[in-house]
Amino acid sequence: MSVSRSGSRVGVWLIGARGSVATTVVAGCAAICAGLHPPTGMVTETPPFASSELPPLPSLVFGGHDTVDCPLPKRAEELAAGGVLPPGLPTAVASELAAADREIRPGGPLPGDTRDQEALISAFAADIQDFVRRLGPTRAVVVNVASTEPPPTDQALPPSTLYAAAALRAGCPYLNFTPSTGLHHPALATAAAESGLPYAGRDGKTGQTLLRAALAPMFTQRALAVRAWSGTNLLGGGDGASLADPAAAAAKNAGKERVLADTLGTPPEGEVHIDDVPALGDWKTAWDHVAFDGFLGTRMILQTIWQGCDSALAAPLVLDLARLTARAHERGLSGPLGELGFYFKDPVGDGPAALAEQYAELVRFAERLRAPGAGGQGRADGGAGEER
Amino acid sequence: MSVSRSGSRVGVWLIGARGSVATTVVAGCAAICAGLHPPTGMVTETPPFASSELPPLPSLVFGGHDTVDCPLPKRAEELAAGGVLPPGLPTAVASELAAADREIRPGGPLPGDTRDQEALISAFAADIQDFVRRLGPTRAVVVNVASTEPPPTDQALPPSTLYAAAALRAGCPYLNFTPSTGLHHPALATAAAESGLPYAGRDGKTGQTLLRAALAPMFTQRALAVRAWSGTNLLGGGDGASLADPAAAAAKNAGKERVLADTLGTPPEGEVHIDDVPALGDWKTAWDHVAFDGFLGTRMILQTIWQGCDSALAAPLVLDLARLTARAHERGLSGPLGELGFYFKDPVGDGPAALAEQYAELVRFAERLRAPGAGGQGRADGGAGEER
Amino acid sequence: MSVSRSGSRVGVWLIGARGSVATTVVAGCAAICAGLHPPTGMVTETPPFASSELPPLPSLVFGGHDTVDCPLPKRAEELAAGGVLPPGLPTAVASELAAADREIRPGGPLPGDTRDQEALISAFAADIQDFVRRLGPTRAVVVNVASTEPPPTDQALPPSTLYAAAALRAGCPYLNFTPSTGLHHPALATAAAESGLPYAGRDGKTGQTLLRAALAPMFTQRALAVRAWSGTNLLGGGDGASLADPAAAAAKNAGKERVLADTLGTPPEGEVHIDDVPALGDWKTAWDHVAFDGFLGTRMILQTIWQGCDSALAAPLVLDLARLTARAHERGLSGPLGELGFYFKDPVGDGPAALAEQYAELVRFAERLRAPGAGGQGRADGGAGEER
Amino acid sequence: MSVSRSGSRVGVWLIGARGSVATTVVAGCAAICAGLHPPTGMVTETPPFASSELPPLPSLVFGGHDTVDCPLPKRAEELAAGGVLPPGLPTAVASELAAADREIRPGGPLPGDTRDQEALISAFAADIQDFVRRLGPTRAVVVNVASTEPPPTDQALPPSTLYAAAALRAGCPYLNFTPSTGLHHPALATAAAESGLPYAGRDGKTGQTLLRAALAPMFTQRALAVRAWSGTNLLGGGDGASLADPAAAAAKNAGKERVLADTLGTPPEGEVHIDDVPALGDWKTAWDHVAFDGFLGTRMILQTIWQGCDSALAAPLVLDLARLTARAHERGLSGPLGELGFYFKDPVGDGPAALAEQYAELVRFAERLRAPGAGGQGRADGGAGEER
Repeated sequence: MSVSRSGSRVGVWLIGARGSVATTVVAGCAAICAGLHPPTGMVTETPPFASSELPPLPSLVFGGHDTVDCPLPKRAEELAAGGVLPPGLPTAVASELAAADREIRPGGPLPGDTRDQEALISAFAADIQDFVRRLGPTRAVVVNVASTEPPPTDQALPPSTLYAAAALRAGCPYLNFTPSTGLHHPALATAAAESGLPYAGRDGKTGQTLLRAALAPMFTQRALAVRAWSGTNLLGGGDGASLADPAAAAAKNAGKERVLADTLGTPPEGEVHIDDVPALGDWKTAWDHVAFDGFLGTRMILQTIWQGCDSALAAPLVLDLARLTARAHERGLSGPLGELGFYFKDPVGDGPAALAEQYAELVRFAERLRAPGAGGQGRADGGAGEER
Repeated sequence: MSVSRSGSRVGVWLIGARGSVATTVVAGCAAICAGLHPPTGMVTETPPFASSELPPLPSLVFGGHDTVDCPLPKRAEELAAGGVLPPGLPTAVASELAAADREIRPGGPLPGDTRDQEALISAFAADIQDFVRRLGPTRAVVVNVASTEPPPTDQALPPSTLYAAAALRAGCPYLNFTPSTGLHHPALATAAAESGLPYAGRDGKTGQTLLRAALAPMFTQRALAVRAWSGTNLLGGGDGASLADPAAAAAKNAGKERVLADTLGTPPEGEVHIDDVPALGDWKTAWDHVAFDGFLGTRMILQTIWQGCDSALAAPLVLDLARLTARAHERGLSGPLGELGFYFKDPVGDGPAALAEQYAELVRFAERLRAPGAGGQGRADGGAGEER
Repeated sequence: MSVSRSGSRVGVWLIGARGSVATTVVAGCAAICAGLHPPTGMVTETPPFASSELPPLPSLVFGGHDTVDCPLPKRAEELAAGGVLPPGLPTAVASELAAADREIRPGGPLPGDTRDQEALISAFAADIQDFVRRLGPTRAVVVNVASTEPPPTDQALPPSTLYAAAALRAGCPYLNFTPSTGLHHPALATAAAESGLPYAGRDGKTGQTLLRAALAPMFTQRALAVRAWSGTNLLGGGDGASLADPAAAAAKNAGKERVLADTLGTPPEGEVHIDDVPALGDWKTAWDHVAFDGFLGTRMILQTIWQGCDSALAAPLVLDLARLTARAHERGLSGPLGELGFYFKDPVGDGPAALAEQYAELVRFAERLRAPGAGGQGRADGGAGEER
Repeated sequence: MSVSRSGSRVGVWLIGARGSVATTVVAGCAAICAGLHPPTGMVTETPPFASSELPPLPSLVFGGHDTVDCPLPKRAEELAAGGVLPPGLPTAVASELAAADREIRPGGPLPGDTRDQEALISAFAADIQDFVRRLGPTRAVVVNVASTEPPPTDQALPPSTLYAAAALRAGCPYLNFTPSTGLHHPALATAAAESGLPYAGRDGKTGQTLLRAALAPMFTQRALAVRAWSGTNLLGGGDGASLADPAAAAAKNAGKERVLADTLGTPPEGEVHIDDVPALGDWKTAWDHVAFDGFLGTRMILQTIWQGCDSALAAPLVLDLARLTARAHERGLSGPLGELGFYFKDPVGDGPAALAEQYAELVRFAERLRAPGAGGQGRADGGAGEER
């Protein structure tokens, strides 16, 4: 663990700040800082990132928006009862949870809210600016970890886009860990381009798609012909319910299928299902069935079963992304950070889709984030993001 | 498919020439040359290899050693009945099977054979040289695709090593597609080093280990802590019976475990079983169970099930390797070809263990094989193999 | 194998007579009669049925309706190429395939057919009666093995119901091996009741539901609380395409879910998906994921993966059902044959849903089919079906 | 839950009283009695057993032997930390755990113990008799839930047999929930027969074998030919380590294979592996792969994956067995209780091997346990166990 540089704090503003992922982010960061757990799952704590001058974990301060009221310490207790957080952890990091809880502001719009879009954006931006002013971080990053919203069906900006607009107005880099629209809305295109801020997304790659990005290149490299790639996801937490809505699932599945089309060269047969199974709680299971042809057309099959805890998979990546993007902002990078494709199902930019290549690009990005004169170069070849 | 350069033939001398893999190699090469099947599974038929001037498939001529008598056309019929070769293929390529069958010489030693090791090596080398003289290939490559032999327990050289010694004596590059000792025997070290011949091995990576080489890096890159990686292989062909011998299985498993230790940094808990299940015929199933820790120690599981046809997985790689090594010989490379690690469980040299890195190294090797002045460079950075 | 009683033939009239299942029925019956294969998968060839005086396999003669033209011998060749029938079998039983092919009449209605429902029923019944008259079986059984049709959306009788009405009119017992409406249509209720004919259905239990019927009782018997039972089916043949229609799939899934509700006492959470995956051909894969609670609420998981060939699973059951129902007719039974629930997802009557109990009931039914005075009793306790 | 009859207590004496299973038995019984959890997994709490006058759960008092010192409350905390017991349960039932802990006596022989076999048996019997005298149960049942011991290699009686002899001497029914020798030793045959006590065993059927007993009959009933049934078990608790000893595993595997041979008629190909995977803690995973032939020899595959918690699977069965056997003793039954085959891999007697038939036999046994005149019959047809 790096040591905090005196006086330098970095804000992490979480949209969906009372959800499972956000609660795990806050509790986990505190647990690692306290030495209660090693930073398993955090890529930015591995050697290739040691010289990138990322903000140290103890320098992170948390706040955010949410539309529900349940206090973070209570949410953490619920997660511990469900086996998502280790028993005893909520008590051990109670003060950090309470501190973050105090920085959560009401999101929206809730039913009955009569404010127009401009008023909502202004209010959200003011919340973020107030957080920065009071807590004094040198910069803050806004991360969307709210439940997946259905794709917009009318002219109104969806909530995720209102929050993204607020981030731009508050001068904060923006990360979209969900398949929701966020900054991808055409109405924000000009503002994003002119903001001089770095941003990245969409949809964290935490399970089935992570596996697909690791496995699909194997078939291509071995010249094996994938005929059909079918999959079913069972998940029970809030995301299970959101994604039971076919429209919301469609947004997520588009990202999943893009990975296959990009790594295999052509999209194979096969569907993806996302089932809401409340009995699974925050755990998810993904079954994949890959039918491929080998030599002389011999039919073969690969199946994978991934059983993971959604929040535990997502939280360390959120911490990674917040640190990387904060540092990118500090180094003056702006625009879409395509080098973060390692983390996303549907990344910004035109980066590679194969996991190994995405990882190599991320490691090059880590070098680029080093201080000038520290042995790193200022500009990676073909790198996404532009320096001001 | 490349067109054969007039007058230039390349010999492929198969140890175990009447086995399932060898039969599939011969039948498959003929089927692809006749346009009956696309070259699925052959890496050397993909674009990165187009300029490497590999010997075209129609230029390959086959022969080999075996200790059994069953004619190749009959073996091919058996494989077709078991679903390993497409129905009708044995008839369609009957003349090519018969031609290869005429070039198979008795292997050994069989029980009752009183020849000493020197006499056996001489006889085997003479067989290869006679093949080259009569059929006139510009060079021949010896490939071991015989059943796995148990590790040697006494001073005597195992048969695989006798054949390897014969390859050196006949001036042929040597490839070991099995976990048997072959050229790895200390008694051959000097001869191999002084031969000026390229060689590679051991143990083709066709199923469970291929998957492991693709998947294990994902855990490392994502900083997920693999606690245990357990596996069971069910296979029914000749290799199933050979590997039911715990000593033979131990040789194979050492290669499998090396992949995990190298890609994960440390060997995880877990065993590997190889079961002989005759009911499966030439098909094999590999189940893997990976227990790993995520953020805050949350326990998660990945399972994979690979169902493939052993011969159909191996045969295209044997053709790839024969072509690459013949071309390496032509280009004057010698010594261990570490860049072929993509194909092996337990490769020669100190190359990477992650599949994506092995593939990148193979592609660089393909560039290195291009004719000088053809746009490729003569020497890859850190490349294994030395040019004479 | 029983010996044919002289002069006694039994007709099997197949709706969908050129489909994969029907072709496998005809080819398989001939292959077993010729001693080419043992009767694997045929329950009626096991000892409990030896004294039931079922029509011997050589006494069966085949005909049927279909809307397509492809001759049976050609269909059989296609199935052999796809690995569904053994290579060589179509040639070996060519004459039996040709004989059945001559007895296939055009089904309908096809687009452009202007006949009304009454005319269609009459034409179909006349075809069946003509078959009986010319070939001289003592009785014929009509079996629906056509592709699943979507549930009817208007007043018109669906085709499966037209064929069922024709069976009644021709005086033939009727079996519905599909989830289509068939005899379940209210418009046929009176005619079925007054016909004095036995009948059974619906929807053959060949894969996922067979497994569920075997496994679900285990949970109940062990007092384990099933929380969610989720499943995905991948299949590629004609049924894959039919069932990709959500309406058709809904009919099939209702049967699947009935099994769980009946054996577990209450329907668990979880969905069932049926995906059309043409790459799988006639093969199907069913994955099931069962989340259950054990002692003190401990969460546990069972997963099953079933990989089978649809036609090979269905065909022996069709032969079983035809024989059992023909014999029931001979013995004067009429009405719904609830004792055949062992074979169906959604059986007629109120029989048990657990496979073991269904099997016990089937064995009792076999006893009931014995000739009076042959040691069997004429009427089983609580038996479905009424004797005239 | 039945209400305790005043004054009537039943002792449960656990060999291995500080192990995971025993701790879960004691904690779980207390939790159910306190209404904290429903009796999930307890067959004897389901309707068919309501009139059998089994000892109510609150009437059970626990004691036992063990060779380790760790107090039960501490063991319970360890199990809760590993997710085996619900968090909070050890605290909630602390007094019951402490009460049982006070009744645990040192087992043996430990290294350095110089007592001969007779002295050990006497000491163990005296411990049990003292427990009965002080706590005043009307009877006590001895249950072996200790780690599996390797099969005896010399003349000495193994520890499990010493405990079984002590049970007989103390006049207590004996249950062997493990594959260890226990009462099966020939040296105890006469004493067991003359004791007038009921007994049952061996080796609780909690996972893979339970599944096999449910599934194998399906293949037989459907006339499908099982060619090979292969399996791998991964488990991490104490039993994982014990069974990593090939000799101990052999004892366990014999039971597993007996189930297949008995239900399929003939033992199929295939092996069973038991791997010690400490990372799994008390959780176990069993993968089974069944290769079977369908109609015309078509090859098909069923695979199952069972992920359960060993102690949570075993504990309710131990409570069931203790209650049933205590009641059998009360009703005057003696000798091997074959009707308890539902619970065991390798049951005493000649009962059926199919789970459904074992369940039916258990339900008949429950009827037989009813008080005479209470509507149950005194003697089941073909029942094992003799009444005095």
